[in-house]
Amino acid sequence: MANAERIFCVAERVVAEYQKGCQLVVVLSAQGDTTDDLIKKAREINPHASKREMDTLLATGEQQSVALMSMAIHKLGYPAVSLTGSQAGIHSTSVHGSARIKRIQTDRIHSELDRNNIVIVAGFQGISRFGDITTLGRGGSDTTAVALGAALGADLCEIYTDVDGVYTADPRIVRTAQKIDVISYDEMLELASLGAKVLATRSVEMAKKYQVNLVVRSSMTAAEGTLIKEDVVVENTYVSGLALDKDVASISVIGIKNQPGMAFKLFSMLAKEKISVDIILQSIGRDKSKDISFTVAKSDLQNTLDKLMENKDRIGFERLTHDDKIVKLSVVGAGMASNPGVASMMFEALYNAGINIMMISTSEIKISVLIDERDADLAANYAHERFFPKKEPSLMDIV
Amino acid sequence: MANAERIFCVAERVVAEYQKGCQLVVVLSAQGDTTDDLIKKAREINPHASKREMDTLLATGEQQSVALMSMAIHKLGYPAVSLTGSQAGIHSTSVHGSARIKRIQTDRIHSELDRNNIVIVAGFQGISRFGDITTLGRGGSDTTAVALGAALGADLCEIYTDVDGVYTADPRIVRTAQKIDVISYDEMLELASLGAKVLATRSVEMAKKYQVNLVVRSSMTAAEGTLIKEDVVVENTYVSGLALDKDVASISVIGIKNQPGMAFKLFSMLAKEKISVDIILQSIGRDKSKDISFTVAKSDLQNTLDKLMENKDRIGFERLTHDDKIVKLSVVGAGMASNPGVASMMFEALYNAGINIMMISTSEIKISVLIDERDADLAANYAHERFFPKKEPSLMDIV
Repeated sequence: MANAERIFCVAERVVAEYQKGCQLVVVLSAQGDTTDDLIKKAREINPHASKREMDTLLATGEQQSVALMSMAIHKLGYPAVSLTGSQAGIHSTSVHGSARIKRIQTDRIHSELDRNNIVIVAGFQGISRFGDITTLGRGGSDTTAVALGAALGADLCEIYTDVDGVYTADPRIVRTAQKIDVISYDEMLELASLGAKVLATRSVEMAKKYQVNLVVRSSMTAAEGTLIKEDVVVENTYVSGLALDKDVASISVIGIKNQPGMAFKLFSMLAKEKISVDIILQSIGRDKSKDISFTVAKSDLQNTLDKLMENKDRIGFERLTHDDKIVKLSVVGAGMASNPGVASMMFEALYNAGINIMMISTSEIKISVLIDERDADLAANYAHERFFPKKEPSLMDIV
Repeated sequence: MANAERIFCVAERVVAEYQKGCQLVVVLSAQGDTTDDLIKKAREINPHASKREMDTLLATGEQQSVALMSMAIHKLGYPAVSLTGSQAGIHSTSVHGSARIKRIQTDRIHSELDRNNIVIVAGFQGISRFGDITTLGRGGSDTTAVALGAALGADLCEIYTDVDGVYTADPRIVRTAQKIDVISYDEMLELASLGAKVLATRSVEMAKKYQVNLVVRSSMTAAEGTLIKEDVVVENTYVSGLALDKDVASISVIGIKNQPGMAFKLFSMLAKEKISVDIILQSIGRDKSKDISFTVAKSDLQNTLDKLMENKDRIGFERLTHDDKIVKLSVVGAGMASNPGVASMMFEALYNAGINIMMISTSEIKISVLIDERDADLAANYAHERFFPKKEPSLMDIV
């Protein structure tokens, strides 16, 4: 029954919104472990299952969600209709497993809204031009919601998640982290791509492109959440938040010949292998050789090392070293570019904490440093304290 | 893993057929308890769930089956593609929960067959003209298979089930029951509607209408199965099989006024209530009143009694009696009409067994008797022995 209770919990919130007189389109993910269970079933059959068939299989998770939610809303006495991705007119590319939404044909949704139905759409899925079921990959349901928000010209797109908003740092690590009330798309994008797991980058990108006002809020509490929109008036804050990314590993390519084009050879090979590289650092060449260090996602580490070794002669290097016991700490803020002191504030905070910085990377609105994973929490707290000095906790913070 | 093993067991049979050079379309039901589990989930949410949402929910069972089967066939090294009802072009009426197939648009299936793919189609489901997912109700997957056989002009439509063919009687009751090699559509229809549960009546009706050669065979063994087709040359057999239907209850309407139109009043009322009536028996009227007895499905008994009592005055009768501890034993055979001795052979067999016959009903190709449910097995064995005298078991029977 726990399952049914959770469904009714969401259904009641949906109905509460509907009662305010809104036209409502609700996008749902699969329930709980459904997707993992289906992946497990598929692996038992075929560890290298075709992506098309995986999509057909996985899409059933969301299809079940929307049907059950519609039943729950009916039970509460309100009109609702469930739509699969295909029925909702969500046309995607045919790249199974990570399709992109191409266009949304909103006729069916509009006609259901005109009949005063609450429309429940299966997230994460679409249909290709061949009529095949596709899934949108990571963050797919958020992306569905934002895309529908754009296509329908929605006043607001609310993303319900397991946290009650975007914070100045991960509250599990930094106890004094504060919820951000309003943040710009660009800042949110940096936070998202730097490891704040609240929203997938692509859904924020889409929201920015189509100017969809996003709210991130908790599915469990009634707290206000964080509004993400275009023009956030920066007042006295030039840093909006901190992000800690633990999914990082660094690789150093030692003894590369000190001649032009070597870095190109190296990184074009990695790009061809679809390996995303983040921070890149190149040593100043001593003698006739130099070293290049860069970071990749932990899950790409072994593959990257293998591919480099396979191409050892072609690229021309002596040896590889790597480190996967590191984290990336980033400070993000739209006001940063005009505040040249931010980097030094960061370095000062880490110096005060006695923390060694391994690599540094900066952009217009962020500064990232690589540090030992054992220093992660300490560094996050010191840096947060430096940029967001502790306030006396107010009643709101406690709630 | 038991689940995966079962899938591979079917996949291997499919591949074996494919290796013979056939173009293959495979129709699948949901796996094991999937449908029941989904129904349970829905009931927890809403015991009166909308049929449209139930269809959207239940259709995921078959969708999962076909995706997993396609993965299994790929794993065995053969080309396959899964199709949902909608992708397979199965257009149905929009009566959710018991939709009828209206037409099949075979373009996609043909193009997949042309690419040498084994085509795996989700049974039991279709799509309405509104683009909604429908399910075909009882026997839906068999019906999908036969309909596809008709639309594609298949040489043969094989139905894989948990028994290895159609028998002269239920082998669980009549130990000497023999498998029938060939049977006509009409005989199969009578057997099916009289309680032989091998095939749903509607799939046999459709096979007859479109002259699709059907084979019923076991999914577990390689045994030959039973061929169902139009013209079966009747040799020395005039009875093709026995069927025992336990889903029967009888109702007697006592003391109906002995005047014209009373039976019409009674049965037109039941027809309006969508209650199917089977055997009807009318007593010769003594005095000014008569009695009418008839049978209904057990599940309709209470409703029928209620409806009769509601209309007691309008129909005009004294009282009702009923009996749900009865079964219907039927003998079916196309050669029966020209063999007037069949009825008396049946009655003789039951007389020899000391079994009382409550009601009798006959058609051109069947004789049905109602008997006490405690006599069911004994009656079936005596009747079977009379029409199919015991043979010495041959090697084939033992296999």
